[in-house]
Amino acid sequence: MTTATRPQLIDALEWRYATKAFDAQRRLDDTVWNTLERALQLTPSSYGLQPWKFVVVTSPELKAALRPHAWNQSQITDCSHLVVLLAKREITKADITKLLDATAAERGLSVESLAGYGSMMEGDLINGPRREKIGDWAANQVYIAMGNLMTAAALLGVDTCPIEGFVPAEFDRILSLNDSPYRSAVVCAVGYRSEQDAYAALPKVRYPLADIIEYR
Amino acid sequence: MTTATRPQLIDALEWRYATKAFDAQRRLDDTVWNTLERALQLTPSSYGLQPWKFVVVTSPELKAALRPHAWNQSQITDCSHLVVLLAKREITKADITKLLDATAAERGLSVESLAGYGSMMEGDLINGPRREKIGDWAANQVYIAMGNLMTAAALLGVDTCPIEGFVPAEFDRILSLNDSPYRSAVVCAVGYRSEQDAYAALPKVRYPLADIIEYR
Repeated sequence: MTTATRPQLIDALEWRYATKAFDAQRRLDDTVWNTLERALQLTPSSYGLQPWKFVVVTSPELKAALRPHAWNQSQITDCSHLVVLLAKREITKADITKLLDATAAERGLSVESLAGYGSMMEGDLINGPRREKIGDWAANQVYIAMGNLMTAAALLGVDTCPIEGFVPAEFDRILSLNDSPYRSAVVCAVGYRSEQDAYAALPKVRYPLADIIEYR
Repeated sequence: MTTATRPQLIDALEWRYATKAFDAQRRLDDTVWNTLERALQLTPSSYGLQPWKFVVVTSPELKAALRPHAWNQSQITDCSHLVVLLAKREITKADITKLLDATAAERGLSVESLAGYGSMMEGDLINGPRREKIGDWAANQVYIAMGNLMTAAALLGVDTCPIEGFVPAEFDRILSLNDSPYRSAVVCAVGYRSEQDAYAALPKVRYPLADIIEYR
């Protein structure tokens, strides 16, 4: 594997900022979007369960319908690809079976040989301590995808704006998710910054390492 | 900015896997660790509040004390840097003041000019809808850091294993966090894979794009 260099990684993370104004004329080309889509797909998740879905809104009409339910933020309509990251509401035996089947197929194993793995997931997620807060657990996994997406985008010179300021119930209604096993958890606007966005030039505000890292 | 190439990014994400066996002899050198530390510091968070702390355990004795409370997983002791990602338990007015002060200092602004931003955060996080679930909100931000850390590490050819299978109460006790404003949210073992780790060669199991991406 050719690793990235330190400057590439850190430059990208320093270049990244929560884009306030997108260039409404610029769109990601398919190659770039397909790379981000593949990055999303490769996101790690607990047990490998991938308790997520990603709704990618490019329709101007649908973006316009969503925007009032996100504090009317211009990023919703001006970005290229509006990614609504959905978290699974519940984890069921069917989810576990689906993963075991896919694992057996991908790795040339029998489903029976994975029974212990299945029981472990069931014991933890369905009958165990995580059951009560399974929606939060699924949302946590979705935030891993969010982190991965923003970093991946920055590495490719693509801008993002993470958006928690939206009304999930309205997004769910507009995206017809009310009867779906998935719900809107968080939103990421993806595209290219406007040259007029003054926020791009502001120094980043980060607490010193001494405040956030503790060695033991 | 020199962007990474598509192959660099996707190769890194394909190369990454949840490392089961670390090479207990290999340690990250300081340059590599410092890059990851900087990547953690640069992680985006809601409002820029950075409601986290990262405890980095390298002491063999402390790793050994933690291991029984993480299902005795060998990654805990064999990795190079064991990162325990902590989430803030509460968000207080002091957290908001701290961010406003840092922003004013970094950007050469008066704190007064940021009053609207302060009220917005207060209205949302302290007096508003997120208050009831503020611990979950903080954990979500920590999972962004988790996603960023795993992707950043992979890009540098560094292995990781995300660990949710640990007993937070025991970790908090051992790390003396019971009276701290922070609690253990999730763990990431960082280091180099053992050449003997058979998991490294297994094909990744990911659901097809058609299952996880929906275009609108």
